[in-house]
This record gives sequence, C-alpha cells and structure tokens, in this order.
Amino acid sequence: MSNPKVGIIMGSKSDLPVMQDAIEVLKYLGVDAEVTIVSAHRTPKRMFDYAEQAAGRGIKVIIAGAGGAAHLPGMVASITHLPVIGVPVKSSNSIDGWDSVLSILQMPNGIPVATVALNAAKNAGILAAQILGTQDETVAQAILKFKDELREKVEETAKEVEQLRF
Amino acid sequence: MSNPKVGIIMGSKSDLPVMQDAIEVLKYLGVDAEVTIVSAHRTPKRMFDYAEQAAGRGIKVIIAGAGGAAHLPGMVASITHLPVIGVPVKSSNSIDGWDSVLSILQMPNGIPVATVALNAAKNAGILAAQILGTQDETVAQAILKFKDELREKVEETAKEVEQLRF
Amino acid sequence: MSNPKVGIIMGSKSDLPVMQDAIEVLKYLGVDAEVTIVSAHRTPKRMFDYAEQAAGRGIKVIIAGAGGAAHLPGMVASITHLPVIGVPVKSSNSIDGWDSVLSILQMPNGIPVATVALNAAKNAGILAAQILGTQDETVAQAILKFKDELREKVEETAKEVEQLRF
Amino acid sequence: MSNPKVGIIMGSKSDLPVMQDAIEVLKYLGVDAEVTIVSAHRTPKRMFDYAEQAAGRGIKVIIAGAGGAAHLPGMVASITHLPVIGVPVKSSNSIDGWDSVLSILQMPNGIPVATVALNAAKNAGILAAQILGTQDETVAQAILKFKDELREKVEETAKEVEQLRF
Amino acid sequence: MSNPKVGIIMGSKSDLPVMQDAIEVLKYLGVDAEVTIVSAHRTPKRMFDYAEQAAGRGIKVIIAGAGGAAHLPGMVASITHLPVIGVPVKSSNSIDGWDSVLSILQMPNGIPVATVALNAAKNAGILAAQILGTQDETVAQAILKFKDELREKVEETAKEVEQLRF
Amino acid sequence: MSNPKVGIIMGSKSDLPVMQDAIEVLKYLGVDAEVTIVSAHRTPKRMFDYAEQAAGRGIKVIIAGAGGAAHLPGMVASITHLPVIGVPVKSSNSIDGWDSVLSILQMPNGIPVATVALNAAKNAGILAAQILGTQDETVAQAILKFKDELREKVEETAKEVEQLRF
Amino acid sequence: MSNPKVGIIMGSKSDLPVMQDAIEVLKYLGVDAEVTIVSAHRTPKRMFDYAEQAAGRGIKVIIAGAGGAAHLPGMVASITHLPVIGVPVKSSNSIDGWDSVLSILQMPNGIPVATVALNAAKNAGILAAQILGTQDETVAQAILKFKDELREKVEETAKEVEQLRF
Amino acid sequence: MSNPKVGIIMGSKSDLPVMQDAIEVLKYLGVDAEVTIVSAHRTPKRMFDYAEQAAGRGIKVIIAGAGGAAHLPGMVASITHLPVIGVPVKSSNSIDGWDSVLSILQMPNGIPVATVALNAAKNAGILAAQILGTQDETVAQAILKFKDELREKVEETAKEVEQLRF
Repeated sequence: MSNPKVGIIMGSKSDLPVMQDAIEVLKYLGVDAEVTIVSAHRTPKRMFDYAEQAAGRGIKVIIAGAGGAAHLPGMVASITHLPVIGVPVKSSNSIDGWDSVLSILQMPNGIPVATVALNAAKNAGILAAQILGTQDETVAQAILKFKDELREKVEETAKEVEQLRF
Repeated sequence: MSNPKVGIIMGSKSDLPVMQDAIEVLKYLGVDAEVTIVSAHRTPKRMFDYAEQAAGRGIKVIIAGAGGAAHLPGMVASITHLPVIGVPVKSSNSIDGWDSVLSILQMPNGIPVATVALNAAKNAGILAAQILGTQDETVAQAILKFKDELREKVEETAKEVEQLRF
Repeated sequence: MSNPKVGIIMGSKSDLPVMQDAIEVLKYLGVDAEVTIVSAHRTPKRMFDYAEQAAGRGIKVIIAGAGGAAHLPGMVASITHLPVIGVPVKSSNSIDGWDSVLSILQMPNGIPVATVALNAAKNAGILAAQILGTQDETVAQAILKFKDELREKVEETAKEVEQLRF
Repeated sequence: MSNPKVGIIMGSKSDLPVMQDAIEVLKYLGVDAEVTIVSAHRTPKRMFDYAEQAAGRGIKVIIAGAGGAAHLPGMVASITHLPVIGVPVKSSNSIDGWDSVLSILQMPNGIPVATVALNAAKNAGILAAQILGTQDETVAQAILKFKDELREKVEETAKEVEQLRF
Repeated sequence: MSNPKVGIIMGSKSDLPVMQDAIEVLKYLGVDAEVTIVSAHRTPKRMFDYAEQAAGRGIKVIIAGAGGAAHLPGMVASITHLPVIGVPVKSSNSIDGWDSVLSILQMPNGIPVATVALNAAKNAGILAAQILGTQDETVAQAILKFKDELREKVEETAKEVEQLRF
Repeated sequence: MSNPKVGIIMGSKSDLPVMQDAIEVLKYLGVDAEVTIVSAHRTPKRMFDYAEQAAGRGIKVIIAGAGGAAHLPGMVASITHLPVIGVPVKSSNSIDGWDSVLSILQMPNGIPVATVALNAAKNAGILAAQILGTQDETVAQAILKFKDELREKVEETAKEVEQLRF
Repeated sequence: MSNPKVGIIMGSKSDLPVMQDAIEVLKYLGVDAEVTIVSAHRTPKRMFDYAEQAAGRGIKVIIAGAGGAAHLPGMVASITHLPVIGVPVKSSNSIDGWDSVLSILQMPNGIPVATVALNAAKNAGILAAQILGTQDETVAQAILKFKDELREKVEETAKEVEQLRF
Repeated sequence: MSNPKVGIIMGSKSDLPVMQDAIEVLKYLGVDAEVTIVSAHRTPKRMFDYAEQAAGRGIKVIIAGAGGAAHLPGMVASITHLPVIGVPVKSSNSIDGWDSVLSILQMPNGIPVATVALNAAKNAGILAAQILGTQDETVAQAILKFKDELREKVEETAKEVEQLRF
C-alpha cells in the first residue's frame, strides 16, 4: 500500500463527526488519507512538528478543520509550503460559525488557506482530490465520474418531482 | 515557451486592479498564467466554454475573481474538474464584501471552490503555485524561497522597530 | 389545458418543502405551473438548457429557489430574458440564511433577480401571479380577492383578541 | 404619447441620484415611466393615494426606492395588487445598507416585494421592462438586444485584457 | 372605569405570546390598555384609521409589535403625533431578528419610534408607564415600587448564591 | 423662564456634533432643554448623581447619547424612573455602529431604554417632545405643525422632481 | 483560610450555569474565589458599592458575566482600578450573542475590560489565575500543569483517532 | 534600569500606528515595555521562541496586536502561561474588523486571550498596568491617578458644554 498523500487533521475529537466526510469522500475517490488530532492551541509543538514534517513523509495536501478562533489551518499553512485546505467547523459556543469562517478565510497576504464552506469537510476532500488529480489521471477520472453521478442523481430526482401532483 | 498552467479570469475589467496581484505573484514564482475576462452573468456561454475547455488546453488550476453575488468561481467549478480558486472582490455597492465572500465560499457539497480572503488575489496566486508545486519541484522551491523572504522581511522590520525610541 | 406560464425550479429535492408554497399559492390563484429540479452546480448544462428554452415553451416567469451559495436564480436570469424570481432557501449548514440571501439578491447591474424573503416561496408565487396579472384580468381579480381574504382574516383575529381577558 | 406603464417613486429627493438609473435604463429600453417623490413616513396619505390609484391610471409596475427603515415599497405593495419592485438605497446613517435591504426584502407572507440589490435601481428598471416584456414583444426584443450588448462589451474588454503585458 | 391610555397593537395573532408581557406589566403597574390586531401589510386602511383616531379616543401612548420587515410601528408613528413604542418580534423565517430590529429602529429623521429590545414587550409596557408617569404620580410611584422589587429580588438571589458550595 | 423639562447628556464632547440635532429640534418645538457631559465610564459618580437628581430638578425625559460599548443610557435608566431615550452614536473605532446600537437597545427586562436610530439625535428630540406632548397641548400642536411641514416639504420636492426631464 | 483574591459576579442567577465554569477551574487551580449576584441595571448601588470596596477587601481580579446589553463588566471597570475580566453570556432573547459580546468588548479608551469568548467563563477563570500567577509561583505552576494536561488529553485522543478504521 | 515587564508584539510594522498607543500609555503609567515585530504566519518559529522565552526574561504580561485572521495573540497564549492581551487591529482588506475581533476573542476553552476593543491598544496598555498593579503599589497609584484625570477632563468639558448657547 502506498503512503497517504492527504493528511487530515482537526483541532479536537469533537470535530470528527464533521471531518469524517472528508475521509469518506477521499476513500470513495480512491485517495489514501491519514487522520489525526492536532490542536494549535493545546499542542502547539505537535502542530509545529506535524506541519514541518508532512511534506517529507510524502503528504501532498493537508486538510485542517477547526472551530471558534480557528488557528490550525492558518498556522499549518505558515509552516509548510504544501497547499492547506481549511474547514471551518461550527462548534458549540461559536457565534453562528462566523468566528471559524473568518479566522480561517481572512489570512494575510503571503500565506493562503484554501477555505471551504462551513462544515463542508466533504468539499475539502474533493478539493484535495482535485489537487492530486492535476497530476494523477486516475484521480482525475474518479472526480469526473463523481461529477457525473451528482448530475445523474439530480436528473433522477427531477423526474420524480415532475411526476408529483400538487 | 510552455503553455500556461494557470488560468486567471475575472467577471469585469474593474476587478483587474485586485486580480493583478495574482498575475504578478505567479510571475515572481516562475509560473505562466493566462488572463482574460469571463462574466458568468453577462457572458454565460463564454463562461461555459472557458470552463469546459480549460483542462484540454493544459490549464491545471483556475483562479476566478468576482464581486457582489459572485457566481463565476462556483459556476466554473461546476463545469470543470480542475481545482478552482475563488477570489471575493469587494466591488462598489457590495455590502461590505459579505456578498462576494458568502456567494463564493458557501458552495454546496460536491462542488468546492478554494476560497481566499477578500481581495486576496495574491494569495490565490500563491495557492495556485502551491498546487502546481505538489508535482513541480522548481515551483515548490520558489515557494520555499518566497516564504523565506517573507520571514526575512519581518526580521528586518523587527530590528527597525526594536531601535525606535518611544 | 393550457401550457403552464410559470416555471418553478429548485436546486435540490430538499428545497421542495419550502418551494411547495409557491406551487400551492399559484394553484389557489388559478395559475398553472410546472415544477422540476435544476441544479446550477450539479447539472450546469440542464440549467443552461432550461433557461434557454423556457420562453420558447411559453413560460412567462421563472421562480428559482436555492440555498447556500445560491447561483441558480442568477444564472438562469443571465441566460433568459424572462423575469426571474429568486427564493433564498435556508439550507442546513447555511450561515443563518445570509449566504443564500446575498448570493441571490446582490446581482450585478444588467441582470436582475426579483428576490423575495428567506424561505418565502409563497410570496414568489404571488409575485409571479402579479406579473401575469399585469396582462391577465382573471389573475388580477384572483389577487385582489386573495388580498381581501388576508384582510378579513386579520379582522377576524382582531375581534378574537379584543375579547380576550388578560 | 402613451401613458407611462412604470411608476417610479422614492422616499426623498436625496434618493434621486440612485434612482435615476432606473429612469435611464427604462428610457433606453423604450419604456415610458413617471417619476415622483412619495414618502411613506412623511406623506402617508399621499403614499396611500398613489398606491390605490396607480393601477387605475394604467401603471403596470411600480418601482419604489427607499433607505434606512424603508417602508415605502412594502406599504405600496400592501395597498396595490400590481407588482412592486423595491430598491434598497444606502442612505447616510444607514447601518451599511443592512437596514434598507432587510426592511424591503423580509416582507411577510401574502405581500411580496421584488427586491433588487443595494442601490441597484438600474436592475429595478430592467426588471420592470422584463415584466412588461412578458406581454410586449417590442420590449422583450429591447431586452434581448440589451443583453447582447452586455455580452459584447465583456468580449471587447476581454480582448483588451488578453493583450495586456504584466 | 376610565378609558385606556395605552393602545397595544400587533401585526398578527402569532405575536400575542410575546406581546402579552406588555399587557401584563401594564396591569401590574395599574395602567389600563386596549389590545388588538392591526397589520400594516394586510390591513393598511385599518392601520391608517387606528393611527389617526388613537389620540382622539384618549390614547396617550401606542405600543406596536411586529416581526420581519416590520412596518407597523413606523407607519403608525408616521400618522399619529403620539409617542409610539416599537417591539421587534423574532418571527419564524426572521433572519435572527435583525430584520425586525432594523426595520423598526432605523426610522428616518422626523418620525421616531421608541424601540426596545428584541421580543422585549415587557419593557415596552414599562416604558409606556414611564411616559404616563411623567404626568401621573400614581403611575410614577408604581414604577418606583416595581424598581424596588427588582432590586430586592436580586438581593435575595445574591444571598442564595453566596451560600452555595462549589 | 421655566425649568428645562428635557435633560440631554452625552458621554463625550465628541458626541456633540451628533447630539446638537436633539437640542435644535427641541428648541424648534418650543421645549427647553439642559445639556451637559456625563460619562458612565469616566465619571460614574457624576452619572449616578445626575440620574438620581434629574426627576427632583423637574426633568421629565432624559436623552442620553453614547458610542461604542454605550452604557450611559442604560445605566441612567437603571437609576431613574423617568423615561430615557438612547441615541447610539457611531464613534470612531466603532464596529460600524453595531456596538452602540446593541449595547443601548438590548436592555434586560425591567429597565427599558427608548432607542432611536444610529446618530438620530433629531428623532430623540422629537420623541422627547412627543412624550411631553401627552400632557402639554402646546407641544402637541408644535409636533402636529412639524409633521405638516415635513409633508409640505415632500410635496414641494415631488413637484420639482415631476418637472425634471430625464 | 486566606481571603479570596478573585471576585466573581454575574447579572442574574440565570447566568450561574455558565459562570460556574469559572468557579470550578479556579478551584482546580487552587485559587479561592467569592461569588455573588450584582446587577448593574437592577441594583446599581450594590454594583457601585461592590466595585468600590473590592480592592479594599483584598480582591485582586474581578470576573463579571452578563448577557444582552451587558453593562456590568464595563461599569465595574469604570469604578475600580483592578483588572476586570468580562464574560459575554448568551442569554435568551440575545441577538445570537452579538449584543453581549459588543457591549463588553467595545469599551472606550481609558477603561479596559479583558473580554473572553462568548460563554467562556472557564477561560475567565484561567485568565484570573494567570494574572495572580504573575506574582504567585504556586498558581503559575498550577497553570503550567493544567496546560500540560490539556496537551496530554489531545495526544491521547490523537492516538485513539489514528487507530480508527474509516 | 529594570527589565521591561510588558512585551508588546505585533504582526506587522503596519500595526505600529495603532499599537503605539499601548507603548505611550504604559510609559505614562511608569511601566517599562519592550516592543518588536513577531508574525505568527510569516515567522512562526520566531513567534514560538518569543512566547517560550518571554517569562524567563522577566516579562509578566504580553500585549499582541494583529489584524485579519489574527492568530498571533492566541498562538502566543497557547505557548506561554503568562496572561496575553489581544488587540484586534482593523487592517486594510479586513471585513470591517470582524475578522480580527473574532479570531482573537473566540479562543477555545483552556487558552484565554484577554481581548480589548478594535484598535484599542491604549486599553491594552492600561490593562497590562492593571495586572502589574495587582502586585505593584506604585503602578496601582498611577492608574488611580490616571482615572482621576479622565474624570477631571470630563468635568471640564461638561462645564464648557453647559456654557454653550444653542
């Protein structure tokens, strides 16, 4: 089995129900991922080490999810040169998710984080696959097939809805 | 000269002063880019054609900037399987930029847009390079050097500020 | 039976519980409507075709509902010259509905979408009838009657409340 | 000369620089409009009379612009059965335009206002023409031509931008 | 029994659970109030008549509660010269209450509405009593007593909390 | 000369350009007012004394303006039983005025502040006059005349605008 | 037993479930605290006295929690020279917590309140301990140990998550 | 000369015009401070080292200012056990300051940042002095004197304003 190319990290185990979508969609698209907990605030050294060593271990893309004043994606992006995808997680006591969205999205010039929608770990997984797909034709084909399936599902429900009597 | 690997599009020429930063940073990082205007709302067919043909022309990453109810990044992402980076532009009559941020960021499951900060075209360029850098060592090295320079500039200004008498 | 004059589309079947109100109020006002699913992001070509062909099929007004980064109403409006009514749907993971409101409302100059309140598919239906009513006296009378009924219902509850002992 | 079919009203003369765009685009599309000042708050009876008599005078669509706690579009819509287009105007002392947007958009069930973007009087004019265009082929053709021109202008600026050397 | 001096109106019977607090606190403070339903949007003439006749019937203060694009308090204030107290009600489909708050609070110069907190009908009742208390010593004394009771309740719970063992 | 019945206070002299509108409209309506600076945060004892003594000096209504975390209106309301009108002032470093609006408006049950729009000191003055007008027929007549003048000014500008050629 | 060095106050007993976290974490860190109810709005004199006497009784840091238009932390800070930590409590009828956050955070120049996250009484307790820890080595060591435990808990859950099969 | 007890850091030299207020007020209160630039994103190792070594060098309180997705205060707080005061700076391209406010304030349980108002570096300085003042009577006296001066300045401007003729 090949080394995983996508590293998925999150600030707390309570983020797992959200972040699981990234793991599953990557699996569906045939992309190996590793998963762990790394907290910017409670394990700053672990975060530092993770970010510094990821590229050396063969990781190509990092997905980082966090809530509230979410510093994990941005801090990892400051340390590694790999593309980092940030997932704002709507945690309890969040102010409607605005805090995690803004503290991941509004990175200063020089250090981008590729931010996806609130709780949209599934899209983070797809985006990671798209990035790998720029060099890996198998992954690119898997994404094309996935997009076809999305289309087909809409076409099916369209037929159902068109039959409905109101 | 090789074909450009990054396609930069924007909804209107008035977005150019913002989007120029993407062009320049890519140039600085040694990445070729093509630039044009594509409006989701005023040229929907052109947008459709652009998105459909980009991969075939050798484009690996698309950067799309737009303001207000910004549909360009998301619509391009719906058509191509390439990674799409969205730049929310704070246009005149925008409601403080919230409209462009939310209409680019909050994409539904299945169709991600890698969103960067408001007006942060520079970060879009760097992110595009990071994506290419996952397979192109020259670009990866350019990013590492760029990050070193960022660090050095901070260290220099730190020295200046430490000398100041208040 | 005459051809429907109102086309009702929505981005996903999960929008149906909200969008049903449009269908029902149009029926109540004696206006035929067709209903289907069209996703800007998952079926861009279907969306394109729908918008391009609607006028030719006799549709006079399109009602489009969508949530999150809601691009359906605006994209349909960019393709057709018919009036398009947009219904911002408060989907799960929406940021309190702000995302769908702003990505439908804040259209650029040249391409309007007639936006109604969050989840207000009923008002979208009434507005469609009002548009048809500008040329169809039967519909205009139905709206006048509907407004009378609204008034009467308030007057009745007013009497009830005035009787209450606090 | 025919009677105007579009009535344009605004809460205060200070709204005229914004609302002028509606007048001009309607003129460009060959649609006659009448213009006056009607304040829901300072001339409630005048507002009442205007709304009650508009249909009788041959008006088919009303465009109402107002700022702050903007009650004009909604109140006119409560009195007439004609479609009412609301233009939220960003007045001085407005809280970033949110007040006018929300007090026009968030109408209760039964009384829709077709809301356009902040300060987007031009789009209000186009929308009024689209509504008339559902029954008037000349207006429909003017809108199709207008949309073509929008497209052509983008295509021209696209060529310009493609020539630029960065 | 004397004529009521406070008129309490609300846009819909669904506002009654909130508005009841105004009725009850006024009763507690010994102030008579009349209560009814008046909808700015569904019964504009009734609203007009209510506002125009209130002063003549001996009403001194009007309390008006409404949700969403809440026009009732502001429209009543535009017609009467009596002080109008507005209660923003957080209705279903409200955007977190912001719509009712802003469409009541942000009245233009010339036509104030005395706005209280979201759903704070109790405070509207107290404010109405304070206004009457500027000329009615009995009411003024009732308010002073009410404020004393508030203080005493806090002092009691303070003692309880100070006893707690954590 | 009679004692002033309205006390106007503000947190800082920098609020005077805004608060002046209250003084002027009260003068126009024939109502005497006293004006001073009272800071809840920098002069808490002065604030306490002012609030405690106002009623005894014949003051009937207090207008309090403040910016940022604006505590002056609410604290004065907690001490006096007089009606307190709060003017949210948009100070420098305010977050778009939201801070002053929310910290004046959202008072807890028991202690209302009659809040007016952002910077709307003019409306605070009118509201104070309306409160006095509930017992003083001269003031009531002045308000009625003022409202007539508002109406006449709109009617005049309406005529002007109707003459314009676009 | 020594006098408590931290005074914890809150505006209402309903804030206790939130504020309890401050009490418990201080206990865990070996810091004595006293707890009581002080309402800025319902017991202004009690609030005044509490703030004025706290330093004299040996209190070194005050933690004040309040919701809505939360004036308690700022008013206490205006009276005492001790550091005051403010906890914005998300009360019922709060507008998503924004009101308490902004009315505690946005204090004017001269009178700071050390604000923590919405409902984050635990962090208020830790911050109070950190302040005492600047002079008390025992407390400083307790905080270092607490931070170690946070780290260890993350490392443990990281191991668990790494074992999971997806 | 004694070692500085307050460390002031900021993410960029462009924050200096704001952060200077902290330096000046500390000087005025007789507290020594050191100042430098530390960027969480561009110099993560420097940030790490600064936070780790501050306590050892005798620093008692750290003031950290940053804008946008402001991670500096929170990251420093995650590494040191000293109290950290965060100053949200309203940088260019900030979304009205909300991004820096939320990404500093909304820290997770365990790692507090004492947040002050947007751009309120002066209050950060005063708060740092208040913290030192819990153990240093000279500083405590300086704060008491400073608060007296604030009061006196208000009393003076109050006299001026009371003389004004409107």
